[in-house]
Amino acid sequence: MFFPWLWWPALVHSAANTPTQLEVAMDTMIRIFHRYSCKEGDRFKINKGELKMLLQRDLTESLSCQKDPELVDKIMQDLNANKDNEVDFNEFVVTVAALTVTCNDYFVEQLKKKGKTSSTLI
Amino acid sequence: MFFPWLWWPALVHSAANTPTQLEVAMDTMIRIFHRYSCKEGDRFKINKGELKMLLQRDLTESLSCQKDPELVDKIMQDLNANKDNEVDFNEFVVTVAALTVTCNDYFVEQLKKKGKTSSTLI
Repeated sequence: MFFPWLWWPALVHSAANTPTQLEVAMDTMIRIFHRYSCKEGDRFKINKGELKMLLQRDLTESLSCQKDPELVDKIMQDLNANKDNEVDFNEFVVTVAALTVTCNDYFVEQLKKKGKTSSTLI
Repeated sequence: MFFPWLWWPALVHSAANTPTQLEVAMDTMIRIFHRYSCKEGDRFKINKGELKMLLQRDLTESLSCQKDPELVDKIMQDLNANKDNEVDFNEFVVTVAALTVTCNDYFVEQLKKKGKTSSTLI
């Protein structure tokens, strides 16, 4: 069980100082979500149109070779855990985390194939 | 239920092109994890010493006002879901996601207090 409230006041406190790479990454996820969620409807949730825009612009290259016209619908169905046809921040972050785990699995597989240590690629 | 394998080959494919901010954030999480995990022991897991280093260097400011000498132990206990005293990539990403949700909650609370739209702060 994870208890972020143990240390999050410190994290918020740090906003005034120069953020680390990890903090910048966290900040990016927040900013990108709100950049799209505020466009229409509930400003703290992403609807299907906003999701389509986010995928096209922020995972552009990643999805460019996908030809499935129902892809946005399928992704919305996957992301939208509570079935309200909108994606809230928690659902969005879980998605980014799951995608990152998949990329990491691929990265580790490649490392193992090449017999390299992670430090040689970092 | 989220099915990253629906689109992850495309994400991996995109590595050769210019990454978006979101892709850079995902890449940062992977790189930071491996930067520490490869230092000692299992090169794909973070032990207590490596976790301490990661917290000190990559959440430096965030933890600087914490005076609890047992903080690293407490965090390790929280993160280490499978109780093997090491943190794997999944556990690490879940932690970062949980921290990001907490920061977002704070951000949204501030927005609501000030009655601003998210777009004015993004």
